Amino acid sequence: MPLDPSRTIAELQELRELTGDENGAQRVAWTDTWKRAREWLRGKLDELPLEHEIDEAGNQWWTLGGASDHAVLIGGHIDSVPNGGWLDGALNVVAGVEVMRRIAEEGEPATTVRLVEWADEEGARFGRSLFGSSAAAGSMADQDELRRRKDAEGTSLPDALEEHGVDLDRALDAKSQREGAAAYLELHIEQGPVLESMDIPLGVVLGTYGVERSQITWTGQAAHAGSTPMDKRRDALAGAAKLALEIREIAKRTGQGAVCTSGNVVCKPGIVTSVVETAEQLLDQRHLDAGKLAEMLAEAREAAERFAKEEDVEVSWERIWAIEPILFDDALIELADEAVTEVAGQSHRLPSGPLHDAAEVSRAGVPTVMLFVQSLRGLSHTKLEDTKPEHLELSVQALDRLATKTIERVSTQV
Amino acid sequence: MPLDPSRTIAELQELRELTGDENGAQRVAWTDTWKRAREWLRGKLDELPLEHEIDEAGNQWWTLGGASDHAVLIGGHIDSVPNGGWLDGALNVVAGVEVMRRIAEEGEPATTVRLVEWADEEGARFGRSLFGSSAAAGSMADQDELRRRKDAEGTSLPDALEEHGVDLDRALDAKSQREGAAAYLELHIEQGPVLESMDIPLGVVLGTYGVERSQITWTGQAAHAGSTPMDKRRDALAGAAKLALEIREIAKRTGQGAVCTSGNVVCKPGIVTSVVETAEQLLDQRHLDAGKLAEMLAEAREAAERFAKEEDVEVSWERIWAIEPILFDDALIELADEAVTEVAGQSHRLPSGPLHDAAEVSRAGVPTVMLFVQSLRGLSHTKLEDTKPEHLELSVQALDRLATKTIERVSTQV
Repeated sequence: MPLDPSRTIAELQELRELTGDENGAQRVAWTDTWKRAREWLRGKLDELPLEHEIDEAGNQWWTLGGASDHAVLIGGHIDSVPNGGWLDGALNVVAGVEVMRRIAEEGEPATTVRLVEWADEEGARFGRSLFGSSAAAGSMADQDELRRRKDAEGTSLPDALEEHGVDLDRALDAKSQREGAAAYLELHIEQGPVLESMDIPLGVVLGTYGVERSQITWTGQAAHAGSTPMDKRRDALAGAAKLALEIREIAKRTGQGAVCTSGNVVCKPGIVTSVVETAEQLLDQRHLDAGKLAEMLAEAREAAERFAKEEDVEVSWERIWAIEPILFDDALIELADEAVTEVAGQSHRLPSGPLHDAAEVSRAGVPTVMLFVQSLRGLSHTKLEDTKPEHLELSVQALDRLATKTIERVSTQV
Repeated sequence: MPLDPSRTIAELQELRELTGDENGAQRVAWTDTWKRAREWLRGKLDELPLEHEIDEAGNQWWTLGGASDHAVLIGGHIDSVPNGGWLDGALNVVAGVEVMRRIAEEGEPATTVRLVEWADEEGARFGRSLFGSSAAAGSMADQDELRRRKDAEGTSLPDALEEHGVDLDRALDAKSQREGAAAYLELHIEQGPVLESMDIPLGVVLGTYGVERSQITWTGQAAHAGSTPMDKRRDALAGAAKLALEIREIAKRTGQGAVCTSGNVVCKPGIVTSVVETAEQLLDQRHLDAGKLAEMLAEAREAAERFAKEEDVEVSWERIWAIEPILFDDALIELADEAVTEVAGQSHRLPSGPLHDAAEVSRAGVPTVMLFVQSLRGLSHTKLEDTKPEHLELSVQALDRLATKTIERVSTQV
């Protein structure tokens, strides 16, 4: 069968009918709806000469043996958040089905080609995202903690897994799937506004951001709003306000791709008649370059010290969470750029804000790249999530071209 | 009896023993403890040739007839907030007792002199402050609403009043007490840091601030902290942060005595991974000059419009509450300045941030002035509230001198 990108759209719509409702997609991992989606997916590939298996972490694999054991992997996830969108994750596995059809049609490929549908990327039910991919990557280090995890109804994670034939104690054995893996390709909607604002359908992802999350506590002095002259105040909000504005300058100075966000400030006592005594501020900083990320954090801390001095208040920092940047493979980024340019006439390289299964695969040492297709209004994790049909079709074509180029590269390199 | 300011301190300590506990003063209006405090006060004046009465609003009056019916009033309140301080309100009535002793000792004064202990200045139990003074001033306009007011236990305000012999329907008849009133004098602790910071024991109050209270709602767009570039954001917090800093510049430009406070900012969704969509900000602005207050509000609104434009967010304003400035009497301010300077060697004129019974009396057209005595660390409404004993003694002396000067002025003027 020649590649038919319009079929991908039709199949995504079919999946939406099967597993969504008026509130959006309901393919939450480790539920019956998710199981139904996976069975539907399997049905789509039943006619092809592929070996199907589900690994120890619940990941679903289809393998098309090639002239070489070295394998090119195409991956995605079919699970969604509750009331989610129709494209987040599913686009890639369904596009992957179409690419597998085209390759299988042409006979034995030069390398083995595998499609993987990762289990529980979203972590919607148990709050543990990238479950299947981190198990296969060997980076799942929190199994002890996961054994105690419960969902909102009190069902434990191990019990829910068992219903789907997965034994948490053996999940890490899924790492054997990495044998022979020479490249990993993932297509995803952007979930951000960059490509739309540039009027570009497709982009190449450079990697996933490193993240530094901090909670900053400003401590001043509560004082009566009427009886305390301006120059006698120690206003905690003033520190937080200055920093909320300064982090934007820090991001600007750091340059393209740097983001800093203050998502919350909580004031105490928080009443109209009192100067703010304490302000608790959240800060999220991201960059693709670990050095620049560290610099952004250092600059924010220095600025905070300066503001604390200016305002005669105290400031303290607590790191809430952090992750290193994960950079994708240079050679695959080049190939992806070629594929996108051939298909869409132009390409744009950009970092990914959200994490993806691709980050776990890349961490495990498998050369990895992602393609982004434009999201309308940057919306995701909502039934309003959407992408123009012509862009969806282009994305299937680009993934297909990238697969061809990658198979060729892997087969000639090894 | 000659004036004995040390007796005022001893009596305030006695009152504290009688009506306080380890958490502070408990003289909440319309309670048994408050009643006990008022009976104690009455006992202190029983030996003097004064006429005692309780008016229709529950205010307690002592009258020393003079050569003229024109009356000089000295006032304060003996009620406190729960867990309150020993001086807020009580200082003036107890100092007033000492001044009445001194005047009565000297025979018939040139004018009638009256001491008033206002009922329920704090509004601690029913949330309605300045109860007795606003009734006597004729400015109590919320009687219908007060009839439905209940305390935390569900007791209605009219029922609580009735237990203390007060009929809410007749409270406004207390305005007859204003007959002949030619001057009103009130001593109070500053409840702020100004006098302490200047190392000055006593000050003269110019009036009570006009207040403008606003709630400002900034509306931007929630967006993912990772996938939204800095120049694509519509950050509601940025508007609030800019305004929180700008109001300080507005107060500075307006000059001495202007205060602007942003006491709270509430961010939504308020999570670390999202740009702030809405920020609800509180603003309190105060000035002694109605024109300047209006100007400060206008400047804040203009600045907010500018910031909304800069940040591509929306901003809307709601007035929560407002009150006009109430200016005290120029001639009495001069007399008070003289009295303070004679007693303490120096004086300082300052506005009052908090409202006081004096504001109600002044609104009703009775020439009014207040004296402030230094508060330690500006603390009030807490058991930590305190003032140096030597400053308390000076304050009794200053009130006494001011009474003498005022009686003389009233008697020669009329």
